[in-house]
Amino acid sequence: MITVKEIAKMCDVSPSTVSNILNGKNNMTAETKEKVLACIEATGYRPNYFAQGMRRQNNKTICIIAEEICQFSTPQIVESIMMYCEKNGYRTIFINLGMYNKWDNKGIKVGSPDLIEENTKPAFLEAQAIRADGVIYVAAHGRALDVVPENYDIPVIFAYGFSKDNKYKSIVIDDEESSRVLVEYLISMGHKKIGVVTGTKENYHTIERLKGFKNALKAHDIKYDPQNVINGDWQRESGYNAAKELIKKDITAIWCMNDVMALGAYDYLIENNIKIGEDISVIGFDDREIAAYAYPKLTTSAIMLDDIGILSAKMIINEIEDSSYRKEKVAPTRVVCKFIERNSVKKI
Amino acid sequence: MITVKEIAKMCDVSPSTVSNILNGKNNMTAETKEKVLACIEATGYRPNYFAQGMRRQNNKTICIIAEEICQFSTPQIVESIMMYCEKNGYRTIFINLGMYNKWDNKGIKVGSPDLIEENTKPAFLEAQAIRADGVIYVAAHGRALDVVPENYDIPVIFAYGFSKDNKYKSIVIDDEESSRVLVEYLISMGHKKIGVVTGTKENYHTIERLKGFKNALKAHDIKYDPQNVINGDWQRESGYNAAKELIKKDITAIWCMNDVMALGAYDYLIENNIKIGEDISVIGFDDREIAAYAYPKLTTSAIMLDDIGILSAKMIINEIEDSSYRKEKVAPTRVVCKFIERNSVKKI
Repeated sequence: MITVKEIAKMCDVSPSTVSNILNGKNNMTAETKEKVLACIEATGYRPNYFAQGMRRQNNKTICIIAEEICQFSTPQIVESIMMYCEKNGYRTIFINLGMYNKWDNKGIKVGSPDLIEENTKPAFLEAQAIRADGVIYVAAHGRALDVVPENYDIPVIFAYGFSKDNKYKSIVIDDEESSRVLVEYLISMGHKKIGVVTGTKENYHTIERLKGFKNALKAHDIKYDPQNVINGDWQRESGYNAAKELIKKDITAIWCMNDVMALGAYDYLIENNIKIGEDISVIGFDDREIAAYAYPKLTTSAIMLDDIGILSAKMIINEIEDSSYRKEKVAPTRVVCKFIERNSVKKI
Repeated sequence: MITVKEIAKMCDVSPSTVSNILNGKNNMTAETKEKVLACIEATGYRPNYFAQGMRRQNNKTICIIAEEICQFSTPQIVESIMMYCEKNGYRTIFINLGMYNKWDNKGIKVGSPDLIEENTKPAFLEAQAIRADGVIYVAAHGRALDVVPENYDIPVIFAYGFSKDNKYKSIVIDDEESSRVLVEYLISMGHKKIGVVTGTKENYHTIERLKGFKNALKAHDIKYDPQNVINGDWQRESGYNAAKELIKKDITAIWCMNDVMALGAYDYLIENNIKIGEDISVIGFDDREIAAYAYPKLTTSAIMLDDIGILSAKMIINEIEDSSYRKEKVAPTRVVCKFIERNSVKKI
């Protein structure tokens, strides 16, 4: 590994001249600068940013802590954070907590709050130890989080989850408005009797999405009928079972609060020769890859993962570079999902 | 940020005593050790591993360079590398090249070799600059790679792709044997007239998978009929078009060389009321999430992403810790896929 000293020797200049060039200073002749830069290029010398960070105030490094890289939403959020940071002169360090993996192996319910801290605390401390300028915490599913260690002295932004005490800025999806838009579409297609398969009962997404559902009904003076709302658990099987119940009721469309349950409903309907998009309409939420590959292709609401990533990167850079912005307390930024019309809803 | 000096002062010991405790030495009283450890725990002090790496020979850090975090195979490989390394006392640094993203934006064909180096070289140099002990390069699709800069002085392992010159060890999937097993299954189910939809023609996976197909036929004295083999391009549309052609021929089963094309074939068959798993059998490759969500569930061959990750982590640690192992030249390690029987193949 080549050092600054060796480069200085090769170019017959002092090590501090090499350092000055690396730091973008201009107190040397153009000839010297060119010579040193050519030598740096030829030898493949790279400064050790981490060692620099020990000396500098601003390390130009953002630490991304993701709860679970294998969750469908995470890779794209992380990629867009990385691309935005790179374009704006920030490096990223990525820590994957692998929480789903660990929890599943232990037979512990995903999301169990008792176990969050033992996973998150070391990661936050590590971000501090490597002198990151800021942290973006990428949650695996939306919920109120209380994971930042006390007296933490670098900025933190939450993506896809939010800070319990509003102390930190967050970017989340706008479940309520996105659901309203989706149900509005169903109504515009003539559906007034809509069966709903919710996520787990106390879940944040479930509560917000149900609000959006009610808002859309209310705007059209359609009565909310709790009889047509069945509690699911986000899993395929619960979509299957709910479809079995709902199909007995007086409904024309089924909205499942995620695509996975919608495809569970597909399973039941196909098995029983009930034509989706003809005999009954089905609609999902998330726009996972499976939605576009289903037959018929599932109409759904796409989470804007790229936007969430880019926004969180912008916000962390703002926090790092603008201390007054950092002090501002703001409510979570809500990103509305993009409605995706495909072939699973019939106009009646 | 608390320092070793401050901890030493708080505990009324010398900084070198604190360092010795952090480095696992035992030349102090149990009482002193306990006092210092309690103080470290209470203050949340964490050593800066990167700064340590500047002084130490072994930094206990492995750099993962992934071509594309958004490729379906990458998150799970990366997660299992991280988990294995963590269990074995190594930290990981993750660099995502975001290649598909960049290439698509530029309108450049994915995998174009001209552009690989401009993306990979800075990443390899960065791994060196942060004093990583080794690099695992996670390819986005299997192919011969020539990406390590000349005179690179730390070990490199390739996962999901392989080194062009056999200079570096690699872990790849065993396309040939995995395909043989899959076709063997079709034959055991009574299928002798099998249509094939290949990937892109010159692609490494296509060539190897076709070898496996021929091996299975040969073992059962079934004649290989090139008329029944249609070139696809891994995309859904090509599966659709190939199914349209193959269905006119005298075949009982269609093997698509990936799940995406198999679901393209599904599209055509469902549209034309040809019952999958009844009138015709369909089989895929990869076991992406979409395979299990298709109706009927797609029988396929699952890439052992966890095994590939764990093996590559084991190998890089071996290379780091055992210089004679590092010098050994070995052919790529081939991991056979796991055959997954679902509902898309009928016994005839």
